[in-house]
Amino acid sequence: MNAPARINSALNVRDQFPAIANWHYLDSAATAQKPQAVIDAITKAYAQDYATVHRGVYERSAVMTQSYEDSRAASAKLIGGQSNELIFTRGATEAINMVARALPKNGRSRVLLSRLEHHSNIVPWQLAGYEVDAVPLTAHGQIDLDAAEQMLTEEHRIVALAHVSNVLGSILDAKRAAEIAHSKGALLLLDGCQAVPRLPVDVASIGADFYAFSAHKLYGPTGIGALWSRAKILAELPPWQGGGAMIDTVTFERTTFADPPARFEAGTPHIVGAVGLHAAIDWVGKLSLDSVHAHECALVAEARAALSEVGGVTLYGPEDSAGIVSFNVDGVHAHDTATILDDAGVAVRAGHHCAQPLMEWLGVPATARASFAAHSDSSDIEALVRGIEQVKRIFSR
Amino acid sequence: MNAPARINSALNVRDQFPAIANWHYLDSAATAQKPQAVIDAITKAYAQDYATVHRGVYERSAVMTQSYEDSRAASAKLIGGQSNELIFTRGATEAINMVARALPKNGRSRVLLSRLEHHSNIVPWQLAGYEVDAVPLTAHGQIDLDAAEQMLTEEHRIVALAHVSNVLGSILDAKRAAEIAHSKGALLLLDGCQAVPRLPVDVASIGADFYAFSAHKLYGPTGIGALWSRAKILAELPPWQGGGAMIDTVTFERTTFADPPARFEAGTPHIVGAVGLHAAIDWVGKLSLDSVHAHECALVAEARAALSEVGGVTLYGPEDSAGIVSFNVDGVHAHDTATILDDAGVAVRAGHHCAQPLMEWLGVPATARASFAAHSDSSDIEALVRGIEQVKRIFSR
Repeated sequence: MNAPARINSALNVRDQFPAIANWHYLDSAATAQKPQAVIDAITKAYAQDYATVHRGVYERSAVMTQSYEDSRAASAKLIGGQSNELIFTRGATEAINMVARALPKNGRSRVLLSRLEHHSNIVPWQLAGYEVDAVPLTAHGQIDLDAAEQMLTEEHRIVALAHVSNVLGSILDAKRAAEIAHSKGALLLLDGCQAVPRLPVDVASIGADFYAFSAHKLYGPTGIGALWSRAKILAELPPWQGGGAMIDTVTFERTTFADPPARFEAGTPHIVGAVGLHAAIDWVGKLSLDSVHAHECALVAEARAALSEVGGVTLYGPEDSAGIVSFNVDGVHAHDTATILDDAGVAVRAGHHCAQPLMEWLGVPATARASFAAHSDSSDIEALVRGIEQVKRIFSR
Repeated sequence: MNAPARINSALNVRDQFPAIANWHYLDSAATAQKPQAVIDAITKAYAQDYATVHRGVYERSAVMTQSYEDSRAASAKLIGGQSNELIFTRGATEAINMVARALPKNGRSRVLLSRLEHHSNIVPWQLAGYEVDAVPLTAHGQIDLDAAEQMLTEEHRIVALAHVSNVLGSILDAKRAAEIAHSKGALLLLDGCQAVPRLPVDVASIGADFYAFSAHKLYGPTGIGALWSRAKILAELPPWQGGGAMIDTVTFERTTFADPPARFEAGTPHIVGAVGLHAAIDWVGKLSLDSVHAHECALVAEARAALSEVGGVTLYGPEDSAGIVSFNVDGVHAHDTATILDDAGVAVRAGHHCAQPLMEWLGVPATARASFAAHSDSSDIEALVRGIEQVKRIFSR
């Protein structure tokens, strides 16, 4: 285990996370812990710089508006987009709901998803009246793009896929997915919740049409996320929610709307959320997402090897998972595993991970899931392995 | 001005607001500054207690889930509702959009609003396909409920009114509004954005059907608000957004949904927003909203008297405004007034305040608006008056 240990020490950021002292936090795929730099940015925004945005004539409001728009620019740049193409939402879930509801169907009423999608990339399409087709997975837990190519028809308005699976960590060949979607005149939406904190993303080179992510999974604050789309698509999208800031003129007879992105940001936004997101982007940018990805891949390799060595543990997903390892201890329900691990100071998630169709595909009611972040290191894996050994001891009695 | 000064010193909380040192912040109706107790609660949530909610098996997640649900209970109690009737939203704007979109029209396609509504209580109804009727105002800037009674028909599905006007500070006779709405089988939605930080609210005694408010106007964090409704109404409301946490079971063929309030909270919520909102509710509760209301009414009386004394200032709205004074300096555009006031260290808002139909009713393109909060005191009014005198000097040259 020399190689992973070297990579771990290369990041060396654990002491920047005040909330995980003496704790083996392996639930970063659910939500990331926050580095002190992000917490400080949030505190400063409330305690020193606070004002509304877009509306105040006074200086402090102008400064805060600039901070808010700077965050938009940084969020767009993070994924290779332009500032005017980036809409702040409550999170990735709202972003996908917005697309499902606002995008005109243009006579196409089907959506092509995959069997590993998070509920947030299934239910919005159902609620918006789409017929859902689901691409199967390969034996290694990848979305089967050959099958996708066969399944896609001109009845499909959109292909909507996880860039990285929240359960298996499988990385989509996003560029090929875009080519397939466009070959039948469909659009491609990528759920980037797990990709953005773990990989460099470039929507331009992918050729994506919509990209959604959440700040709280990217070391940032809760309550904010983003939807990126091409300026040309956004220009033709009608507003979804109405309110302040998204209008041009309002009368009771007729209301006209602002240009994107304002058109899609009704009401006072999550101002301090944007400031915190910007701090998170700066923080992860200093590490570089290439380094984070290499670090998490090494941890996955180390964890899979160590869990295999323990024996009696079933591993799910591909070996090159982006920082996520789902598993079950044979004969033990995932909840029991997680509860015993909790007693050992190790936090993993257990359950369906908001991906019930994937659980059905795996043939299990639930998995336990260890997910890594920039602060994770070999000590977390060692604690996980000790905990699993304890699970096995308890259940072999 | 002795009497108001006494009332001001009774609250004496100015030094609890770190962001307004040496600043006369009179834009609390746009967004409230935050007391240190709220900032500390947010910081602690990120730096010490952070975990996801509703999903984690481990102890810290269970504790955070309890904090989140405690905030729901406190938010419901604040306005006289029950915990299972309170949905967290991104803010009041999203709350109103949710009702406009999710409420079945039941064959009634009209909504009755008023001429003083914020755009966030106009545009959502238009986007949802309602025909809008707007109740006129009395000479004192109150919603004319006699006119409302005449205008309401059985074609109206809902009556949607500001509990307190964000421009004039006028307080609605909400109980009578509920009686009028119900007399024709319509529902009553109250936009409580300005009321909740300024008045004790009791949805039960009002007889309201929906109540919306935003945390950031209540000394709380950005990015979170609430929608209250009766359990019976919520039980019959279909989901609006889909995603994690709001489902019962998901298959590609058929998805079933959780009971309210979870049904309406798709995705990872604004966890720390809820914690901060709870801290804000506790903070304002210690002062008591009766005291805050009395304090702000006294400040309004003091400000109106002082501005009248200056001369050449037109005041809008009723004398018993709940903490908000809109005005124009004769012959000076509100933006110029606000800019000069900013140089004098006084922050007021200038513009249409997201209430263009009200501006039309007032016959002006914009007003300047001074709005008070618990931390406001006579020194703010004195600085405002000195600034207005400066405006008059500059424009009389």
